[in-house]
Amino acid sequence: MSDKIDNISVGKKANVFFDGKCVSHSVFFPDGSRKTVGVIMPGAALTFNVGAPELMEITAGECQVRIAGEPDFKTYAAGSSFKVAENGSFEIHAKDEVNYICSFGSD
Amino acid sequence: MSDKIDNISVGKKANVFFDGKCVSHSVFFPDGSRKTVGVIMPGAALTFNVGAPELMEITAGECQVRIAGEPDFKTYAAGSSFKVAENGSFEIHAKDEVNYICSFGSD
Repeated sequence: MSDKIDNISVGKKANVFFDGKCVSHSVFFPDGSRKTVGVIMPGAALTFNVGAPELMEITAGECQVRIAGEPDFKTYAAGSSFKVAENGSFEIHAKDEVNYICSFGSD
Repeated sequence: MSDKIDNISVGKKANVFFDGKCVSHSVFFPDGSRKTVGVIMPGAALTFNVGAPELMEITAGECQVRIAGEPDFKTYAAGSSFKVAENGSFEIHAKDEVNYICSFGSD
């Protein structure tokens, strides 16, 4: 897997969540779609509410995630991913620096 | 000024400094050069040591900066920039969320 996303534009202004415990930059593709490339700080335990469906691809680090409606936390590490349904939510506990790419929209 | 940087690649892994008080992503240009697009959290007072010369362009927010060798702090806000010499350093106090683009190399 490449360590870069190619042929895109990047937003100059960061998206800062939870007092900086999560920081991302927006990435714009030639087809008009948007993803975010971001990081969650070690030890952070955050709950995200989701509008459009999201695909979260973990590119570095390890986290425990519980998606709304699921009974248990599951472990996700670099190379794994999870989906969150429209108007859903998920809790994420970052064991170390968790880097991710978040995609929006339908499957 | 565009709110995006176009025709680039972005690194998937964030650069995290000072326990997340500064977070950036690397941006790679077709000519092989690299910049970073980053954010400094409100209230952070940080000192950065510089290897290659740096150009810091402030794209949002306001900060006080003292470059090594200068007597006083100066105010920089969106649309302004400052340069730091090779092997220099600078102190930066972020008044609010400070977004920046950092370029490396000679003038």
